Amino acid sequence: MSGWLDEVRWNEEGLVPVIAQEASTGEVLMLAWMNREALALTLQEGEAVYWSRSRRKLWCKGEVSGHRQRVCEIRLDCDGDAVLLKVIQEGGVACHTGRRACFYRRLERGGWQTDLPVVKDPEAIYGV
Amino acid sequence: MSGWLDEVRWNEEGLVPVIAQEASTGEVLMLAWMNREALALTLQEGEAVYWSRSRRKLWCKGEVSGHRQRVCEIRLDCDGDAVLLKVIQEGGVACHTGRRACFYRRLERGGWQTDLPVVKDPEAIYGV
Repeated sequence: MSGWLDEVRWNEEGLVPVIAQEASTGEVLMLAWMNREALALTLQEGEAVYWSRSRRKLWCKGEVSGHRQRVCEIRLDCDGDAVLLKVIQEGGVACHTGRRACFYRRLERGGWQTDLPVVKDPEAIYGV
Repeated sequence: MSGWLDEVRWNEEGLVPVIAQEASTGEVLMLAWMNREALALTLQEGEAVYWSRSRRKLWCKGEVSGHRQRVCEIRLDCDGDAVLLKVIQEGGVACHTGRRACFYRRLERGGWQTDLPVVKDPEAIYGV
């Protein structure tokens, strides 16, 4: 029953990039990475589980913040080397900066301009 | 005037993953990669230019198919290691299989099920 995991083209580190998209609005929330175990757990739990490349461990999204991502759909691209999750973002905050989405900077006038507000103070999310 | 390029956290191969999203519908079309030159050209041309990892060369999206991506917005995530393009997909076909988007397979019943139709025959797009 795990043949579907074999169809993913894991990179040389055993990872695949994963796009999380808010199901209701279509907003792209973030890009993160999964290994085989993370993707299997994501299906099993119905909540996004990523692989943290910096911490080198599984990362149940929202385990500290409570901002879990309930998974509506798991999609694979033509080459099998990218995954798209449609999710319901709990708390309306995907980004560790307290913003709705991680892509909060837009290129304008020769620089990256922040155009998404902080919805929730990161200190309130993660504690001091 | 290229300081904004320095704020991107290029990986050890000098690349960054790029999500292309249809501006009008929010549909995620594809995930591809850019190097510094590709991103600079994308801004300059107003059309998506990627780095083809398989061909190891710049890839002006649509150069053969005509399915160019006109760029509406270029966005950067919190960590600086992922880019989001909002585009107008010419021809309504982003995928080399002739589908609207590359994420045409959905995980269901233990396997990847294709749920997006072929809109244009790839032979008609690329020739035989």
